[in-house]
Amino acid sequence: MSEVRDTVFIGKKPLMAYVTSALIQLATMPTVRIKARGLSIGRAVDVAQIISRKTEAGYFVGEILIGSESLESQDGKLRNVSTIEIEVKKQE
Amino acid sequence: MSEVRDTVFIGKKPLMAYVTSALIQLATMPTVRIKARGLSIGRAVDVAQIISRKTEAGYFVGEILIGSESLESQDGKLRNVSTIEIEVKKQE
Repeated sequence: MSEVRDTVFIGKKPLMAYVTSALIQLATMPTVRIKARGLSIGRAVDVAQIISRKTEAGYFVGEILIGSESLESQDGKLRNVSTIEIEVKKQE
Repeated sequence: MSEVRDTVFIGKKPLMAYVTSALIQLATMPTVRIKARGLSIGRAVDVAQIISRKTEAGYFVGEILIGSESLESQDGKLRNVSTIEIEVKKQE
């Protein structure tokens, strides 16, 4: 059985790569969760906005969660980094 | 009559300047709305997280809204910029 994935993690690729991944997931699933940390948080909002504004397929933004994670930075110290998780759903 | 302000706009100042502004507003009002655009969005999440994690005064994150605005950039073109608005409230 293949694993069900409903999450897109935002990294350093061009924005449209994540938009495409999310749209592919939404083709077969009712929701996708767009997750990002730190400096990528603004880009996660961009991806969610592009999907909900530009498509005419009836996608909209659902639940939005923010949080923090402790990460070990390159100097070995623990630092808190903010996180975001944005749900994008099909209109019912 | 003085205008009631319940919003902190995130700009280029050090993060703690916005944390302080928000805490001052929360001293006299039940909620504060932390707003940011574009590259400042991650910093708005940082401010909300610092207030809700670090203080023992019982503040927590409420409604989170994302959106887009059209801005004229320096070359005169209209560009869409993502926005975020994070409500921080007193625990009741």
